[in-house]
Amino acid sequence: MKRTSLKGAECPVARSLDIIGDWWSLLIIRDAFDGMRRFGEFQKSLGVSKGILAARLRELVRLGILETVPVSDGSAYKEYVLTKKGRGLFNVVVGLRQWGEEFLYKRGEAHSVMIDTRLGEPIGKLELRGHDGRLLGPSDTTVKKGRRQKAE
Amino acid sequence: MKRTSLKGAECPVARSLDIIGDWWSLLIIRDAFDGMRRFGEFQKSLGVSKGILAARLRELVRLGILETVPVSDGSAYKEYVLTKKGRGLFNVVVGLRQWGEEFLYKRGEAHSVMIDTRLGEPIGKLELRGHDGRLLGPSDTTVKKGRRQKAE
Repeated sequence: MKRTSLKGAECPVARSLDIIGDWWSLLIIRDAFDGMRRFGEFQKSLGVSKGILAARLRELVRLGILETVPVSDGSAYKEYVLTKKGRGLFNVVVGLRQWGEEFLYKRGEAHSVMIDTRLGEPIGKLELRGHDGRLLGPSDTTVKKGRRQKAE
Repeated sequence: MKRTSLKGAECPVARSLDIIGDWWSLLIIRDAFDGMRRFGEFQKSLGVSKGILAARLRELVRLGILETVPVSDGSAYKEYVLTKKGRGLFNVVVGLRQWGEEFLYKRGEAHSVMIDTRLGEPIGKLELRGHDGRLLGPSDTTVKKGRRQKAE
């Protein structure tokens, strides 16, 4: 019931959560961003049963977030890679990471770090700006319920 | 079982999902960003039972994401407002919104729009940059499993 109530939502936040609002899915997507491609890699990372993982991967392929590609060695195995739609979730994963880093670790407690590969330094913080370049926070924005059509 | 396995995670994405990886919570947080403060407002927006909503609100207060404040009219009602930790989820909510807008609506299909209140125009896209100002995407970053300590 809750699923159908969000599916047609006019709010893009709700519609996104309807699709990926399940933390298994987001952890699989995170692992795919980290370069994992094989069933066994995801399983080892997530410590989840084969049945659950297979179902989640199938669902992510059905949603167009992952796609399967043949393994380059010509074997019967397949690998899972993010589609453009899947790669579009990068900011969501980074947003979750940065919130966790800021609020969920004690000082000095170890956590993984996202590095700007070229510079070898930690990334900056996700930023939202207005068209005049101002940094925007929650008090700078308003949501208009919308008849507005998708731009393009 | 899955809860405990994420709680101590070294990955901030996993730890965040352990806390807010439940789409009811994120929809309540979204509504709070949109200015809702009263139980009845959340209930009307979410169409959820009083029992479920009360439990979720209590949990968000316990986690330090929402706090209760007395209503200014002096009545016995209380209102729910985002704490600093709660407001820190802004980028996650905006990231979900922007992904939904880009991938989950047909052309011309109506959806709500987030507006830069001062300019009265839609916001820009969330951006992640390196310390040299380059825009960073998934192929520009690497996650280091970490002994790294929290900066500060």
